[in-house]
Amino acid sequence: MHDIALGSLTYEDRYALIVGSVTPRPIALVTTLNSDGSCNAAPFSSFNYMSVDPPLVAIGIERYGDDSHRAGDLKDTLVNLERSGEFVVNMVDHPLLEQAVGCAIDYPANVSETVAQGLEVASSRRVQTPRLAKSPISLECRLFDVLGYSKSQSIVLGEIVSIHFSEGLLDLEKIRVNLDAYFPMCRLTGPNYAESTVRTRLRTKQYSKAGVSHG
Amino acid sequence: MHDIALGSLTYEDRYALIVGSVTPRPIALVTTLNSDGSCNAAPFSSFNYMSVDPPLVAIGIERYGDDSHRAGDLKDTLVNLERSGEFVVNMVDHPLLEQAVGCAIDYPANVSETVAQGLEVASSRRVQTPRLAKSPISLECRLFDVLGYSKSQSIVLGEIVSIHFSEGLLDLEKIRVNLDAYFPMCRLTGPNYAESTVRTRLRTKQYSKAGVSHG
Repeated sequence: MHDIALGSLTYEDRYALIVGSVTPRPIALVTTLNSDGSCNAAPFSSFNYMSVDPPLVAIGIERYGDDSHRAGDLKDTLVNLERSGEFVVNMVDHPLLEQAVGCAIDYPANVSETVAQGLEVASSRRVQTPRLAKSPISLECRLFDVLGYSKSQSIVLGEIVSIHFSEGLLDLEKIRVNLDAYFPMCRLTGPNYAESTVRTRLRTKQYSKAGVSHG
Repeated sequence: MHDIALGSLTYEDRYALIVGSVTPRPIALVTTLNSDGSCNAAPFSSFNYMSVDPPLVAIGIERYGDDSHRAGDLKDTLVNLERSGEFVVNMVDHPLLEQAVGCAIDYPANVSETVAQGLEVASSRRVQTPRLAKSPISLECRLFDVLGYSKSQSIVLGEIVSIHFSEGLLDLEKIRVNLDAYFPMCRLTGPNYAESTVRTRLRTKQYSKAGVSHG
């Protein structure tokens, strides 16, 4: 057993221990509009929903690291969503994974990742930013807030205004996601990803004075 | 293919579509101190890390829902962490899952979930709040901020001050998590959970003017 105080670590070691521990993480392949109208795409796994009313997602966006030819630069995603006030979160399943990881390459700002990675884009309904045609589920978001607690990271909050479901993923009668057809990938650490195919069912029970019973 | 505007939905349907779409989510089994000094534990999956410097995690905490005997009440976790200014995030693997789900039962405020679920607690290093002995990795956190964007939810930000690793989970020489021994569960929707055992390796490439190459 070991205890490590984070204050004693370098940024790199601290990052590695946090992303190694807080896992498995959902993957947001975020599309934004570049200033020339082309489409930017970048994956983030410091990502989750945070509330339902308003329907908010949060994304932690780091600057480029020391090993990049763009060291210290703001990510194009942040620059773009602050200019346009919107972005689209495209969820990532196994067929999309290799291209999603390809979008993490530190291309220059004038390179469209969707073009470089051969990703077809499609029109969104309620924002100007396109979604990715191959993504199983896309969340159209308007920028809600950007929290600047850190010089090296921004926490972006987006309000989901509309969700696009690929064929077969939405049960329209029940208004529920068809989980049996939806297998999004999750992020571990380093070059490691995990599938969500091995599943367990456990129902939460309800409390009553007579004791705990199935809800 | 279907597009659904979130503004047109009930709270329940909106919740179901968001938690069905933004997945798989990491699970934080959060321990806090009740006012009588006993230990509260509750699982949350609107959870992730958000930045490295400062090292922040975010957790979205809802009020109790309409189907609870405590409908509309604040979760004890929120009351406790606002009073004490601290909490511990205990990561959840398969051996801990059933008890973690048991901690989601809407017990009255005076019931300790760790006692009710037979979970052994252990002393933390840098906060007063105990960690769970059975958890593979525990993050000791000090309360950093609470964002009140919504009446039904609070977004809690905590600064990680120390991380506890069970035997074999930390490679002390490299200061890295031993991923081959760490299999945390993730949250899907409804009664569904997924393992992180089926894995894929894909290395992110580096950009250079000569072309894209392995980093």
